[in-house]
Amino acid sequence: MKLRIDYNNMLTHTIGDEGITQATLDSLSPAILAANKNMEEKRKAGKMAWRDLPYNQNEIVEDILNYVNEMKGQIEAFVVLGIGGSALGPMAVQQALNHPYYNELPREKRGGFPKLYVVDNVDPERLVYLFQTIDPTKCLFNVISKSGSTSETMSQFMIIKQQLEEKIGIEAARKLIVCTTDAVTGNLITIAKQEGYKHFYIPSAVGGRFSELTPVGLLPAAFCGLDIKGLLEGAAEMDKMCEASNIYKNAAHMYALLHYIGMTTGKNISVMMPYADALKYISDWYAQLWAESLGKQFDVNGKTVNVGQTPVKALGVTDQHSQVQLYAEGPFDKIIVFLGVDEYRETITIPKTYGDMPSLGFLGGVTHNNLIQTEQAATEYALTKANRMNMTITLPKVTPQTLGQLLYFFEVATAYAGELLNIDAFDQPGVEEGKNATYAMFGRPGYDTKKAEMDAAPAKADRYII
Amino acid sequence: MKLRIDYNNMLTHTIGDEGITQATLDSLSPAILAANKNMEEKRKAGKMAWRDLPYNQNEIVEDILNYVNEMKGQIEAFVVLGIGGSALGPMAVQQALNHPYYNELPREKRGGFPKLYVVDNVDPERLVYLFQTIDPTKCLFNVISKSGSTSETMSQFMIIKQQLEEKIGIEAARKLIVCTTDAVTGNLITIAKQEGYKHFYIPSAVGGRFSELTPVGLLPAAFCGLDIKGLLEGAAEMDKMCEASNIYKNAAHMYALLHYIGMTTGKNISVMMPYADALKYISDWYAQLWAESLGKQFDVNGKTVNVGQTPVKALGVTDQHSQVQLYAEGPFDKIIVFLGVDEYRETITIPKTYGDMPSLGFLGGVTHNNLIQTEQAATEYALTKANRMNMTITLPKVTPQTLGQLLYFFEVATAYAGELLNIDAFDQPGVEEGKNATYAMFGRPGYDTKKAEMDAAPAKADRYII
Repeated sequence: MKLRIDYNNMLTHTIGDEGITQATLDSLSPAILAANKNMEEKRKAGKMAWRDLPYNQNEIVEDILNYVNEMKGQIEAFVVLGIGGSALGPMAVQQALNHPYYNELPREKRGGFPKLYVVDNVDPERLVYLFQTIDPTKCLFNVISKSGSTSETMSQFMIIKQQLEEKIGIEAARKLIVCTTDAVTGNLITIAKQEGYKHFYIPSAVGGRFSELTPVGLLPAAFCGLDIKGLLEGAAEMDKMCEASNIYKNAAHMYALLHYIGMTTGKNISVMMPYADALKYISDWYAQLWAESLGKQFDVNGKTVNVGQTPVKALGVTDQHSQVQLYAEGPFDKIIVFLGVDEYRETITIPKTYGDMPSLGFLGGVTHNNLIQTEQAATEYALTKANRMNMTITLPKVTPQTLGQLLYFFEVATAYAGELLNIDAFDQPGVEEGKNATYAMFGRPGYDTKKAEMDAAPAKADRYII
Repeated sequence: MKLRIDYNNMLTHTIGDEGITQATLDSLSPAILAANKNMEEKRKAGKMAWRDLPYNQNEIVEDILNYVNEMKGQIEAFVVLGIGGSALGPMAVQQALNHPYYNELPREKRGGFPKLYVVDNVDPERLVYLFQTIDPTKCLFNVISKSGSTSETMSQFMIIKQQLEEKIGIEAARKLIVCTTDAVTGNLITIAKQEGYKHFYIPSAVGGRFSELTPVGLLPAAFCGLDIKGLLEGAAEMDKMCEASNIYKNAAHMYALLHYIGMTTGKNISVMMPYADALKYISDWYAQLWAESLGKQFDVNGKTVNVGQTPVKALGVTDQHSQVQLYAEGPFDKIIVFLGVDEYRETITIPKTYGDMPSLGFLGGVTHNNLIQTEQAATEYALTKANRMNMTITLPKVTPQTLGQLLYFFEVATAYAGELLNIDAFDQPGVEEGKNATYAMFGRPGYDTKKAEMDAAPAKADRYII
């Protein structure tokens, strides 16, 4: 089973002058060749270590599975303390492959696996409410931070560690904390070794938003009973498919190229619209990957470019009743990507109840499977008729393998788009300013200059506050 | 307690040439006067019936509360069958005012109120999985459709009605279905009367996305124990604040004006970024309101305009680790609205655990309340320094009253933006094409011409499928 991509509706033969011409595609051959070359060179130079993840983790997977086996019976919930890539990937995979009401099911319907919570914010209500819901002494807390200096995650860890130690003592608390972090640098590996926490490593050359297929994502998935070997197998399958140098045979590269062309012609919005509840959080995960990788001020030569495409999360058919009015009639400023599924995991049929009512009669005997797929096709038709750029990625079925393919597909597409844009897709310099301002406001030593700069910023006028 | 809006960072004195000048604001006086006049006239002509909702529902509220009182002990869950505005409003209010793990709490911690589920998609897995989680014969199903012809909602209703009648008989099933629909037209009111279902009305002049303060939103909220009178009181407070003709004293009108100016100068994206988990789904509700109201092909004179701003949902601080890189460094194409909270409902303090580690030590003794607010201020600082248009709406605290203010604020702002854009903010002609295509594909009588049109559409080429 492999995913397929249909990009007919990006081209002039379906959407007229709003589409991309064959001549434009042909004219970009030099850029494609250059991007191919850069991708290969970076991979050889070890700068795309995430591409090796489908192949080099056999021992890690065994370690994870053994650990899950040892711990799962001892805990009621597995709690991820992470933010950004450390939260979005685990949530997307859980939503895709597990029961949508997983935490509400009795344990036997969860295959004996613990509940999953992902605590990805420092809203003070979050932890308080969580501890009104579950007993922290019956949870395993997975602290995920590559640098070990993520304020949000580390502060949650500090709060929980104290609570656990007060309630059950240092020895027992130690067993309820597991760290996922860099093997060498940062506070968290120091702490983990010092205090004797079980820990897993994030390869130092793999960035947060490309880390779902490391223990960052594999450990939570395994604790929820998901097939992590299948995920990696799917990623390996997609890796093979992404080796084609002919762009017409390389779906991920073509996805990037078409979006690149869109970006250079006023399509500054990338809508991801799955027609499956299971794939809803793929849009959230993709939003980080695409936004943080491609939203850059400078190109690799230091030239100011201010590029990037803003990801928008939608859900079919739900958002036909929320967003499609805008997509069909608003500005010609977006590329809409439908994520479809050939075969859903369940079937449900509408009874022939109101045969005499025109707007209801036609539904009798139809399955929801048919209804959702027909509405997807109808929305595609309507947007195409309105000359809106759109394309469709279809999974034969949502399985660990096809999900692994999909995640890896978007990672390769993002990296390739970075090459076409001539930017560094793997850094995030733009978040430093906010971090430094936070440190300055808390009076952290070494941030006096920043504090002075902030104090000197233009004052707010009361008359612009209502 | 009233919400306040701070728009300093939309103006040149903080963000330089990327900002709006006082001269621009002054030059728009005629447009502001015209918009004020149109708003008043429409209100008088009964075309903004949603503005009367804070005042004219005393009897309806009593009916709702009595019904909740009668039914709440008899059911384990209240299930909304609705899509678009019929789902987004109820979810946003529940998330804002109730416990975030509401459904997982034991009944006594829910004040004796039932669980809440909102089934807003026709993914065939959705209903199957829901019925693996709860027993449908212990639920009250709220079918919400003004027209009574919403395929998704009505098909769900038909499935559930059949299941209930098979399991517990027609008489008992009747008590477990409650309809919210138009008082006169459509299938659902016909069905409700014919089959004897309890029903509530959506005023015919109130459209779906402006219907949260009708029984569409009030009934689910009341069934979850929320203070619906408080919601309406808050809306009434905001209504008074929105009467000011001086735009510098009218927050909702100013919000619309600033976004309107943004739209005319390349800001085609509206980011809503609450710094509170409780307000997360306000962004989803706002996304429909803003997108569907303002995304229009034609202005009121029939001129092609293709206007509209694409709403983007973000969450602080979480999305600082996902989207802020793009917001700070990408194109100058968005307005970022922070939604802040002065006082959270809980407090939690970080212990002084790692005083000797520079990147952790400063956190010791800090509350998460202080951390989230400081990060919000730091992100605001960073984006302002990068000359990005941003503004902040602050709620003193999230309560039924302030939430009512906020919902009503955005409704007025949306309507006013529609006047400035000179479009009809209350229709949605762009969704008809997809609906008709769906009917045609199902062979619904009367849609032969559409079917023929679809068959004649440009064919897809296999070579553009990978």
